[in-house]
Amino acid sequence: MSLLADLLTTLSARRAVPFTRGTREPTPIKALCSELMTSRGEISAATLARQVLEKYAQMGDKARKAFFVYLAESMDLDKDALRAALDAYADSHDRRTYGRLMEAAQPTRQELIRRLNQVPGATGRLVEMRADLLRFAPEDPRLAPLDLDFRHLFASWFNRGFLVLLPINWESPAHVLEKIIAYEAVHAIHSWEDLRRRLAPEDRRCFAFFHPAMPDEPLIFVEVALTRGVPGSIQELLAEQRAPLRAAEANTAVFYSISNCQAGLAGISFGNSLIKTVVADLSRELPNLKTFVTLSPIPTLMAWLKETAQENAAADPAALRALAARYLTEVKNDRGLPCDPVARFHLTNGALVHDVHPAADLSDNGLAQSGGAMVNYLYDPNRIGPNHERFVTDKTVVATRDVRGLARQAPRPAIPAAAGQAGT
Amino acid sequence: MSLLADLLTTLSARRAVPFTRGTREPTPIKALCSELMTSRGEISAATLARQVLEKYAQMGDKARKAFFVYLAESMDLDKDALRAALDAYADSHDRRTYGRLMEAAQPTRQELIRRLNQVPGATGRLVEMRADLLRFAPEDPRLAPLDLDFRHLFASWFNRGFLVLLPINWESPAHVLEKIIAYEAVHAIHSWEDLRRRLAPEDRRCFAFFHPAMPDEPLIFVEVALTRGVPGSIQELLAEQRAPLRAAEANTAVFYSISNCQAGLAGISFGNSLIKTVVADLSRELPNLKTFVTLSPIPTLMAWLKETAQENAAADPAALRALAARYLTEVKNDRGLPCDPVARFHLTNGALVHDVHPAADLSDNGLAQSGGAMVNYLYDPNRIGPNHERFVTDKTVVATRDVRGLARQAPRPAIPAAAGQAGT
Amino acid sequence: MSLLADLLTTLSARRAVPFTRGTREPTPIKALCSELMTSRGEISAATLARQVLEKYAQMGDKARKAFFVYLAESMDLDKDALRAALDAYADSHDRRTYGRLMEAAQPTRQELIRRLNQVPGATGRLVEMRADLLRFAPEDPRLAPLDLDFRHLFASWFNRGFLVLLPINWESPAHVLEKIIAYEAVHAIHSWEDLRRRLAPEDRRCFAFFHPAMPDEPLIFVEVALTRGVPGSIQELLAEQRAPLRAAEANTAVFYSISNCQAGLAGISFGNSLIKTVVADLSRELPNLKTFVTLSPIPTLMAWLKETAQENAAADPAALRALAARYLTEVKNDRGLPCDPVARFHLTNGALVHDVHPAADLSDNGLAQSGGAMVNYLYDPNRIGPNHERFVTDKTVVATRDVRGLARQAPRPAIPAAAGQAGT
Amino acid sequence: MSLLADLLTTLSARRAVPFTRGTREPTPIKALCSELMTSRGEISAATLARQVLEKYAQMGDKARKAFFVYLAESMDLDKDALRAALDAYADSHDRRTYGRLMEAAQPTRQELIRRLNQVPGATGRLVEMRADLLRFAPEDPRLAPLDLDFRHLFASWFNRGFLVLLPINWESPAHVLEKIIAYEAVHAIHSWEDLRRRLAPEDRRCFAFFHPAMPDEPLIFVEVALTRGVPGSIQELLAEQRAPLRAAEANTAVFYSISNCQAGLAGISFGNSLIKTVVADLSRELPNLKTFVTLSPIPTLMAWLKETAQENAAADPAALRALAARYLTEVKNDRGLPCDPVARFHLTNGALVHDVHPAADLSDNGLAQSGGAMVNYLYDPNRIGPNHERFVTDKTVVATRDVRGLARQAPRPAIPAAAGQAGT
Repeated sequence: MSLLADLLTTLSARRAVPFTRGTREPTPIKALCSELMTSRGEISAATLARQVLEKYAQMGDKARKAFFVYLAESMDLDKDALRAALDAYADSHDRRTYGRLMEAAQPTRQELIRRLNQVPGATGRLVEMRADLLRFAPEDPRLAPLDLDFRHLFASWFNRGFLVLLPINWESPAHVLEKIIAYEAVHAIHSWEDLRRRLAPEDRRCFAFFHPAMPDEPLIFVEVALTRGVPGSIQELLAEQRAPLRAAEANTAVFYSISNCQAGLAGISFGNSLIKTVVADLSRELPNLKTFVTLSPIPTLMAWLKETAQENAAADPAALRALAARYLTEVKNDRGLPCDPVARFHLTNGALVHDVHPAADLSDNGLAQSGGAMVNYLYDPNRIGPNHERFVTDKTVVATRDVRGLARQAPRPAIPAAAGQAGT
Repeated sequence: MSLLADLLTTLSARRAVPFTRGTREPTPIKALCSELMTSRGEISAATLARQVLEKYAQMGDKARKAFFVYLAESMDLDKDALRAALDAYADSHDRRTYGRLMEAAQPTRQELIRRLNQVPGATGRLVEMRADLLRFAPEDPRLAPLDLDFRHLFASWFNRGFLVLLPINWESPAHVLEKIIAYEAVHAIHSWEDLRRRLAPEDRRCFAFFHPAMPDEPLIFVEVALTRGVPGSIQELLAEQRAPLRAAEANTAVFYSISNCQAGLAGISFGNSLIKTVVADLSRELPNLKTFVTLSPIPTLMAWLKETAQENAAADPAALRALAARYLTEVKNDRGLPCDPVARFHLTNGALVHDVHPAADLSDNGLAQSGGAMVNYLYDPNRIGPNHERFVTDKTVVATRDVRGLARQAPRPAIPAAAGQAGT
Repeated sequence: MSLLADLLTTLSARRAVPFTRGTREPTPIKALCSELMTSRGEISAATLARQVLEKYAQMGDKARKAFFVYLAESMDLDKDALRAALDAYADSHDRRTYGRLMEAAQPTRQELIRRLNQVPGATGRLVEMRADLLRFAPEDPRLAPLDLDFRHLFASWFNRGFLVLLPINWESPAHVLEKIIAYEAVHAIHSWEDLRRRLAPEDRRCFAFFHPAMPDEPLIFVEVALTRGVPGSIQELLAEQRAPLRAAEANTAVFYSISNCQAGLAGISFGNSLIKTVVADLSRELPNLKTFVTLSPIPTLMAWLKETAQENAAADPAALRALAARYLTEVKNDRGLPCDPVARFHLTNGALVHDVHPAADLSDNGLAQSGGAMVNYLYDPNRIGPNHERFVTDKTVVATRDVRGLARQAPRPAIPAAAGQAGT
Repeated sequence: MSLLADLLTTLSARRAVPFTRGTREPTPIKALCSELMTSRGEISAATLARQVLEKYAQMGDKARKAFFVYLAESMDLDKDALRAALDAYADSHDRRTYGRLMEAAQPTRQELIRRLNQVPGATGRLVEMRADLLRFAPEDPRLAPLDLDFRHLFASWFNRGFLVLLPINWESPAHVLEKIIAYEAVHAIHSWEDLRRRLAPEDRRCFAFFHPAMPDEPLIFVEVALTRGVPGSIQELLAEQRAPLRAAEANTAVFYSISNCQAGLAGISFGNSLIKTVVADLSRELPNLKTFVTLSPIPTLMAWLKETAQENAAADPAALRALAARYLTEVKNDRGLPCDPVARFHLTNGALVHDVHPAADLSDNGLAQSGGAMVNYLYDPNRIGPNHERFVTDKTVVATRDVRGLARQAPRPAIPAAAGQAGT
């Protein structure tokens, strides 16, 4: 077989290696970890790493919490050693002093995590381990530093340069598709039929980032509809009965859902690269696409309307539209940024507020969160850079003239919101 | 196309993205780097990272050296900041203080390298960058810390868990095979015909580690001959005219050449995992294989014989054999380890000294380095762990009774060698 | 990309080529066909072939029937030409006379079908065309010869040597899996969850034959359960709540469903090769498998019981079991073969009647067809050849001693069945 | 692993199945064949088919000839049976009579060949078998009908619809590339370095047709150079030292070599589909390509010049050019077609004579065959159809005004050639 087909097969085969099955790992996890940190050969290290991961897999939440506290406390940075190494380095900048400083500057547990990762399949295990940690961390402040260590390592391992963008479609493997169903966070997928409607027609696309060490697990995915013109209603976009458009006839690509898949990768951002890469890929494939736009929720709109006693406006489409425009472009949190987290995400990416629609998401969730309003953020390839630059430097929210006009017309609330209360 | 075939295609397509072609990057590299470190959005960061890599590709050695000095000096650790952060953390262990400490504890240039890596294809570029650095480092001690930073990052990125073992054979792509020809470091491959003889027959195998971000570049590879019995001559093993054995009839796998491919990955060890994994894979495929053994050079033997005024012994096969046995098992450097680096490598991996052969490598190189002697290191799956343990803890060199007997018979030199002089 | 990955991609991409979309092919199909038969260059032939297939796709049943009649009558063999060619060949055996005889001996329509097949994607179209033909043929005897032409060509094109056996599992593409759901003919698959239960657990397998020119279309597939011991109930085998067995612990492979997928390939047999190949593949993968057995319906059992006024026996498990044993081993049609078609299929393949179970299929269908009885046919690798030979030469039905004993005990019917009436 | 990757693997794995090794098949091949024709189950048939192929592989030329004579004589058509079946069909057109006629109309050996093909890997064996037959056939007229049978079957099996066009490049597997070196028939490839120069630069392409049942064997391939403008010298085109063009900058694709690979597929034409498909693929990939042209030899030019006593003209470039133009456009064989076989091939495909160059192929072969002259045939996508039509109906040789002008200027020979003597 060819080399690259072998690469494929091998990446695939990793899944097959079952971890724990049956036999219980008898040695306590702390003993295994300290042995792993003192072992000097890669050979015994690999065996120990596997045992640690198996042991962890067999433990319940209580034991896992205790394990994390052990890592946080007993494998912490040695402050005295670091101080001494720093002094030595200040005295003399050379390979030896720098090496010791580097070693002293990272807690033992970081190296432990790196050593655990040498087992095939370990990366996914470690991502799940951090997901556990994030569940426990709010209750126990001792765990915060440990989480920073995981995050530091994951930021390096899940570097954009290591990720692969793949299309997800109706020819994708079922075991990946069932994860798309499970992970869709914005507009729930109710069945395989529903999934088929989002993947199979030629005017529907989906793309995900994968990491080669976790070839079965999408990290983040975006769902795209190809349309003629910018749509203003998610229910219309996803209607069961609709005649698909020929892809070559579409002039607009609509990003209508972006979902993160791995709780354990919280804080490692992929979203902006994803959209940027998909815009580039779709442009190449379908030169007729001229407009790249989202159809996005405004999840904190109703909270703000309530807070400012304007919730009655939600019943009047025109008023709701104007208030939504105002909320997105003018209402800021205590850092001077838009209150709505989805707005912050797209504006940071260099998008601009293109249009606002009332009665655009009539689902229970859509009505509850935003009174049914939705927004289009526009990704204009030529303006992404400057928009982004203005937003991150001056916090300028770029919007179309229409949206700005709408925002100005919006009624002013009697009760101003406490900055930053809604949203964030 | 299926998802995994897409992964394959996508990994492959990366190669195709040409870097610099024609247009010169006009901004100075330092300016690009400092902009990259202050940029806040991933979008402009990706563009800047690409520009830095292109600029670097266009620079000559002198400019590259200057760039490395800049990284070493201007992007060094801020010692005062680190001291302050350490004090703050000592006062209060919390997320904020720990986060600042972690940030202060790594020099800016580490983060720079991480940001450069977000461009597709960048990993290979960074490995080449370190290869340059290693050429320059001996002349300029200021560069040593920078090399440690690269090494620290590469150890994390090229973690065993991210590597993929692939067979290399006569069905592998030509562009990979030409690299095997170029990288073979032990027994040169003289032509495609020569390569064919090492890959195509069913009693010949080759395996390499690959990293998914560099899918065209083997990192390390091992060549294997399947034989009946343990061979004692490399020229016989590689003879042009020989009848290949049926794979199922072989009882022995001989590792006769291991080559590292990437100068920029010096110090990141793959060799022991490679052998261990290949032993496991071959055992599964060919259950008749009972013996796993090397046929290895003793590159420092003649140097030691000369130093100890025993070089005449090289003319007498029996004497040479005994002296080689003694050299490998009894002669130690100032750390108490065998002088021969190949011996140290295999003994650390858990192999034992199985047999020694005179007149085993009659090539110019073989005669010059070892008087033609070669050695078999035996990988006994059941004894690898204990051997390794004894070697790394007590520095015990495990050898067969025969080899130990031979060593005892060897004439004692009149002039003892200065410990550690030969080899290292 | 590697050559074989290209092969893969290319086979895949074929699907993508859309046939007719929108524009109607205006030329009448007969004109297109006759032009195709007279065209002398491949280039215009390919265009014409595509037009014929597009035109056909746009036609309704009535026009299709008329088209088939046209093929049957106007593109029939020229009897006079054949007679003349035969005379000329009888006079002189040479290249020219033989060439003319061969040409005269096949009707123009055979060559037409071959020429249609040169368009990528045409093979699947032609299979569908024959499915249409088979629907119409019973009503119009003029179509029978045309069907024989299709069958003759398909037997050549779908030769075992061109088929590829592939495992179908939970990692298979969704668009193939939905066909498995649609085509399952024996024990209906009710949902994707149901499918998952048959594909995902490690003690469940499925294999299908594919033809490279129709890479999205399984031709036939078999579902396999790995068990300990030979099972006697399909409902237990497919129970929703069951703990999967580890594959390595199974000693028995149970073929519990075989489904043909392509109506247009009726009469082209794949089933025996399929079972034989799967037995070989599973034996290699799982050496612990010692028994290869079916759990099969007896679809004509109740018809025979009714015909022979023994249907009351269905209420008594012991009586039903004995009667089923007798029916399978002793009751023959007018060709001297077992009446039950499933029995004939497995016995022709070299299986033997291993055991019979009452209350083994309590589905509506199972009760209606066989009073709930099922049978295990055993594929004993060492006896397949001899069993097959005895069955096809002497019509001997091989059965275990137990089954033969059961058959002897079965009550004799008062009313003997007319030979060959039940079943066929 | 995914289904399509499985297809890939499976196609690949076929190669691995070794045929004969060691043990000799003892039964005579005739006995095996007649058993295969009488066997009634697919199971024993497959075993017999494999035995026949193994036996054949072990036989020498003499035995093979005898085997072919046996097939030609003892497995010939039964003329009496065919006559009787024809009479019966004339009496009554029905399924039964037609079935018998079809059966009687094909010699037993055709069915034998089909049955042999059911073994994996058999297709390639049968192609080699016909290559043997074609070597023997000229000496023994009894074999001609057998060759027609092979050809009839191969025309069906190697139908354009079953072929896959793949790019061959420097990433293709070595075992395929070594076949490209071996099969290049027009401009020999002297070494792997030479091959690399034809495959690796981005202005060089190569495409081949493959059949899925012979995934390692190219059937035919074409080599392409991307250039600016139409080239007039093969040595310049293939110069060792040349700066590759960027693919996007090329405006012309030059087909400079087409080679058939399988002697056993003689008479099954792929060439015209190949060029047509490559033109379509390249146009899609590189929209800047406007001109598709060959740089072709005129292998029979010198023979004609000698015959007509004009060979001295070869020394004068202008005279040679004019004579070549005349030869290609005006000199015809006894069927009224151009004498030169390469001209006939491209003109049949719809190309036109675009330009003629003296001193264009200065290799020994080029000088010997055509005095160094070469010709460009132009494939103009818009004119391929009409050109082809005119050529096959009126035998019109389409040429540019320039070429026609040149032809008119050419000196008239004193001695006219016997029509059809040169060339064929």
